[in-house]
Amino acid sequence: MRDLILKELKQQDHISGEQLAKQFNISRTAIWKHVNELRKMGYEIESHPHYGYALIKNTDLLVPEEITFELNTNVIGKRILHLSEVDSTQNIADKLAREGAEEGTCVIAEKQTSGRGRRSRNWASPFKDGVYISIILRPNLKPLHIIQIPLIAGVALVKAMEKTTSLTPSIKWPNDIFLSGRKVAGILTEVNCDIDTVHYIVLGIGINVNTRKTALPKEIKGTATSLSQECGHDISRVDFLKQLLLELETAYNEFVTNGFEAIGKQWMAYNNTIGSNIKVNDGQTEIEGKALRIDDDGFLIIKTDDGQTQRIISADISLK
Amino acid sequence: MRDLILKELKQQDHISGEQLAKQFNISRTAIWKHVNELRKMGYEIESHPHYGYALIKNTDLLVPEEITFELNTNVIGKRILHLSEVDSTQNIADKLAREGAEEGTCVIAEKQTSGRGRRSRNWASPFKDGVYISIILRPNLKPLHIIQIPLIAGVALVKAMEKTTSLTPSIKWPNDIFLSGRKVAGILTEVNCDIDTVHYIVLGIGINVNTRKTALPKEIKGTATSLSQECGHDISRVDFLKQLLLELETAYNEFVTNGFEAIGKQWMAYNNTIGSNIKVNDGQTEIEGKALRIDDDGFLIIKTDDGQTQRIISADISLK
Repeated sequence: MRDLILKELKQQDHISGEQLAKQFNISRTAIWKHVNELRKMGYEIESHPHYGYALIKNTDLLVPEEITFELNTNVIGKRILHLSEVDSTQNIADKLAREGAEEGTCVIAEKQTSGRGRRSRNWASPFKDGVYISIILRPNLKPLHIIQIPLIAGVALVKAMEKTTSLTPSIKWPNDIFLSGRKVAGILTEVNCDIDTVHYIVLGIGINVNTRKTALPKEIKGTATSLSQECGHDISRVDFLKQLLLELETAYNEFVTNGFEAIGKQWMAYNNTIGSNIKVNDGQTEIEGKALRIDDDGFLIIKTDDGQTQRIISADISLK
Repeated sequence: MRDLILKELKQQDHISGEQLAKQFNISRTAIWKHVNELRKMGYEIESHPHYGYALIKNTDLLVPEEITFELNTNVIGKRILHLSEVDSTQNIADKLAREGAEEGTCVIAEKQTSGRGRRSRNWASPFKDGVYISIILRPNLKPLHIIQIPLIAGVALVKAMEKTTSLTPSIKWPNDIFLSGRKVAGILTEVNCDIDTVHYIVLGIGINVNTRKTALPKEIKGTATSLSQECGHDISRVDFLKQLLLELETAYNEFVTNGFEAIGKQWMAYNNTIGSNIKVNDGQTEIEGKALRIDDDGFLIIKTDDGQTQRIISADISLK
């Protein structure tokens, strides 16, 4: 009912409580209660003795009502769980996936108290500054090819940024998104699999959207940025996220239908790694070389300083 | 305290309640309560007015008290959770792993109501007939190499069977254990990983130990067997499981310390697949060929009928 009232308020300049009550066959008091709930969700709704209710401003929270409104996807985002604060959206999404939640289910939080990146690193997730989302995927995929998932997500992220800002982001293999040499978004791919079958993937994406420098931890102030810092003005998180979900669905569908090849080419067009000299760290040893290409699977092929080509499995690289 | 009393009962032919009470500085009533608990766990303990308590027979349940008694391992089985009945030991172990349970933690059940194998297949787990165990491992491993874990487990399984019976089992790639052409044990490797890092593995092993033909589902009666069916007599599940944990620790330590090579050679010695004509089914297509060898990673290399060599990723093969 709340959704229906919201839809009506979005379509009309103003509408009286009486009209709404009549239309939905509930009392004016019930209408008033729903309107108040919407106000609590951040919608600015005026009530005027003569004209009735008028929606002045949409909420800037990433509530399902906003994200799914005219969202043109069939799978990604069809079910959204929105949380004000959570330890990590990954934990919630993993629990849902384990319980059988359908592909495309999204968990979104306004704030994470223990947001995480790869290798148990922290992902700073201040309230209402960024987009912190975990998406359940159930691809028919061998564990050998899971690297393809974050490459697909990287392409979707860059496209969403291009379409909602004037920026030109690039991707560092496999999936860090950079603007002016600083990281603006990260992807975490948590996989549950058997030796030859992926059961499900929880794809975590964190984007610094309107994050101020002051809201970021000291350690990353020099290496991190946000869309708003680069644009010079705030971005609508709702618009950005809707575009991201759409791009994700487009790229993921292409992958599911036709395989990795086309997405791999798009990734190539956006990457900042191929052709660069890089360092690879697998937690134990470090090797250096020139990034030549990604192979059909999505792994990085480098030429080491002694002239040998090598396939890089560790996803921890740095550009020199 | 219960453990200490059990240890004393195991060491002495008989010991009076008074002696035990004095030794542990608790009342004779408290001793009597502990003895009754042990009886409930399946220990046969006589009480004689003159001689006191005497342990007549150990329990045949897979309780930690029995499994860890003089168990010569440092990691595997140091912590054991024993359940009379559970949906699947994998679910419990996964939850523990997620909560940070240490490597080597084991979940053992006398019965599983939804025991599972690979590809969501059922694993029949009748009460007190088999050994149903899930072991938490935290190897420093790339997802590309997870196939090595069930190969290691297969070697340990075969060795444990050889040492506790007169049987000569063999391994079908990657990890089904066969006796006289019938499957006696299965391994399920459930992995939680990132694109380049395994977070933890829940290694599930199901062995038909004293399982009668009548206790197995119709569909597998022709293709499954048990240790007791092959031996012609029952096997001590406790002795078998202790040996298995020891063999697992030995093989796993070798792997962690020196890598896969030596274990790969042992696997070769026990396998029934290399040299055979096989069919490979990946859920979508089927190919046929001759199994040539396993490669350094543990994957199967076959020569297809048109003369090409191919690396097999799907773990669903059948011998022709």
